[in-house]
Amino acid sequence: MDIKAYIIEKGKMAKNGARRLATVSSSVKDKALLSMADAIEREGGRLKKENQKDIEYARTKGLSPALIDRLTINDKRIIEMAKMLREVAALPDPVGEIMRMWKRPNGMQVGKIRVPIGVIGIIYESRPNVTADSAALCIKSGNSVFLRGGSEAINSNKVIAEILMEAGSKAGLPDGVITMVDVADREAVMEMLHLDRYIDLIIPRGGEELMKTVTANSRIPVIKHDKGLCHTYVDEYADLKMARDICLNAKVQRPGTCNAMETMLVHKAVSATFLLPMIGKFQQAGVELRGCPKVVSLDPSVRPATEEDWNTEYLDLILNVKIVDDMEEALRHIETYGSQHSEGIVTNNHQRAMSFLRDVDAAAVFVNASTRLHDGGQFGLGAEIGISTTRIHARGPMGLEELTTIKFIVLGDGQVRE
Amino acid sequence: MDIKAYIIEKGKMAKNGARRLATVSSSVKDKALLSMADAIEREGGRLKKENQKDIEYARTKGLSPALIDRLTINDKRIIEMAKMLREVAALPDPVGEIMRMWKRPNGMQVGKIRVPIGVIGIIYESRPNVTADSAALCIKSGNSVFLRGGSEAINSNKVIAEILMEAGSKAGLPDGVITMVDVADREAVMEMLHLDRYIDLIIPRGGEELMKTVTANSRIPVIKHDKGLCHTYVDEYADLKMARDICLNAKVQRPGTCNAMETMLVHKAVSATFLLPMIGKFQQAGVELRGCPKVVSLDPSVRPATEEDWNTEYLDLILNVKIVDDMEEALRHIETYGSQHSEGIVTNNHQRAMSFLRDVDAAAVFVNASTRLHDGGQFGLGAEIGISTTRIHARGPMGLEELTTIKFIVLGDGQVRE
Repeated sequence: MDIKAYIIEKGKMAKNGARRLATVSSSVKDKALLSMADAIEREGGRLKKENQKDIEYARTKGLSPALIDRLTINDKRIIEMAKMLREVAALPDPVGEIMRMWKRPNGMQVGKIRVPIGVIGIIYESRPNVTADSAALCIKSGNSVFLRGGSEAINSNKVIAEILMEAGSKAGLPDGVITMVDVADREAVMEMLHLDRYIDLIIPRGGEELMKTVTANSRIPVIKHDKGLCHTYVDEYADLKMARDICLNAKVQRPGTCNAMETMLVHKAVSATFLLPMIGKFQQAGVELRGCPKVVSLDPSVRPATEEDWNTEYLDLILNVKIVDDMEEALRHIETYGSQHSEGIVTNNHQRAMSFLRDVDAAAVFVNASTRLHDGGQFGLGAEIGISTTRIHARGPMGLEELTTIKFIVLGDGQVRE
Repeated sequence: MDIKAYIIEKGKMAKNGARRLATVSSSVKDKALLSMADAIEREGGRLKKENQKDIEYARTKGLSPALIDRLTINDKRIIEMAKMLREVAALPDPVGEIMRMWKRPNGMQVGKIRVPIGVIGIIYESRPNVTADSAALCIKSGNSVFLRGGSEAINSNKVIAEILMEAGSKAGLPDGVITMVDVADREAVMEMLHLDRYIDLIIPRGGEELMKTVTANSRIPVIKHDKGLCHTYVDEYADLKMARDICLNAKVQRPGTCNAMETMLVHKAVSATFLLPMIGKFQQAGVELRGCPKVVSLDPSVRPATEEDWNTEYLDLILNVKIVDDMEEALRHIETYGSQHSEGIVTNNHQRAMSFLRDVDAAAVFVNASTRLHDGGQFGLGAEIGISTTRIHARGPMGLEELTTIKFIVLGDGQVRE
């Protein structure tokens, strides 16, 4: 099989699909998404049967139970996928919104109108529900989606895409709007990353290796969804009860997520009143603590943190703790070790809050709230395709609006360039 | 010399400079830009002396007079550079603008604030004034600029950057905000394109070869300023006098620009009343015409257009002309041959105007106005760094706002994730 020719052919179809989809009405798109939701539920049996193949293969390959769990599609997950499709259908259509329109001195009206980006390539690992999530968000925002899932979920991804495409076509979507690359060969990824003629944007979702491969090889703009090494700084003027609730939530509510706290920075003035009791609370919650020398001397049950620890995104019930002399030291620590993802301060001092907001460079900065709230749904953007850690186009939660671009429109009555 | 180490060192300094510059006040930035303008005028002699080296080298290399003219810095161009610096200083500072702020059901306030992108890499050819333009726009928008000009202008670019840096430092800008890569070796470009740790965005400005090199090798997001193969469609319902003025302007006012018209599409109903007299007018204006068979049979003085002609951005006084049966045919031609840059229609029919605006996919679409108006200044965005043909982040004229990104800010009073 000629993988390059296969990918080019698929790319051409996706581009044609995108051109047609860009002018499809909101009601047709919404009807299609609702049909897809029904189809996912109706075809649950077919779905689980294909998923079983991936699970069996994963078992023969000796994958970990956690990974197999991520792969598994059960009734609950089918219902969740259908629910997500219906929720996306209910969101407002971003396409066609005229964002601004203004008049120039020569009388011409200039405006910006929101349009789809075109073809969006998603390269992802493991969880097959990403197939449905990505297709729903891309189609709602008028984009073709060009999917390449992990080889370990290839049968599940294929059948989900098939079910969605069948339902979409029947409901009036153009051909080519959902493409699933069903070649397990890694060459397919490389060819996809070189398809700048047909794919307009690549969104990688997965681990560090995937991010590196995509960054090093893509000729297409990439919006990364990279790691989060997030801090919370408890200031000397913090409401200590609030600080306790926020820090516990940021660490333990779901430690495996990119917006969970990995390091807590505590002002020295509250080390006895806040930190000492917090150490016990964290340990009760099953959190292993690693501290700077001052923390260790405060409570010798805390293991000393190494340079590597400050640099680690644990995604687990492990927390670094550091006592700082002032906010400056906290800011320097965040600048050195942070990944510009989610950073928080707990304080009741207005000036400290404002300078933290201004000086910390991150996709989202929090005053008196848990970094775990960094999420498209929590922010009120509706569903999200992930949290962008790239500094252009979209930063933070990437919802429907972030999956669009603009075109300028000019209404004249004969204006020319002088 | 170890070029890789040199570029990494420069990148690190640029990143540090960007961190500091992000929180520098508007008044310091503006004062610095005004000092730079004064310095460029004051140091005109030094500038012209260095420029002379490049001109002499270009002559020994046998470069064309047109290219040598583009290289040349004379008093008029010095005054223009200083004027541009003062104009950018006078524009509003985009950094720090809170674009929106909204309240969530749990009471937290979520907002988006405009912040600099970070370090912007500009890779450009020939014209040394791009050095000053890029530095002014990047600094005003709070970004460090990492410049790599063409080797043929290396002495001119170096001295401009030096003069700007000296003036900027004295006026209080942090170190590292202007970096000029003064190694002629092409390896420097490759190392720059791999510096994703320190450079956040690459903007290439130049010919097709440069675009290809950058696209194929960059690990950093790229916003291209690519070619414009622009069309104007004269509809059967056009005001024919208006159509004449617009088409003449779009072709002859400055044919060497990306937003000039390369192909005119004419509805068959106005081929006698509009096209026939226009052929004479274009020829009088020195335009060579290449036509479809129908145009050639209308006026045999028109040379037949080849498939290659329809695909060519002439940047010259040459124009393709095609008679179409209806607007559909015009739309299909634009979809096939256009470069999604600037596309126009002349019509007094409302429905035609509206469907042209909706259906044509381009950075800017014009009704009853010349495509030559596709420009940041004409659109009222102030100065621009170019016209983006990339579909993400910025499309069309890229001004100060387009050189920024956002961060989310969250003001809570103890909110946690449920």
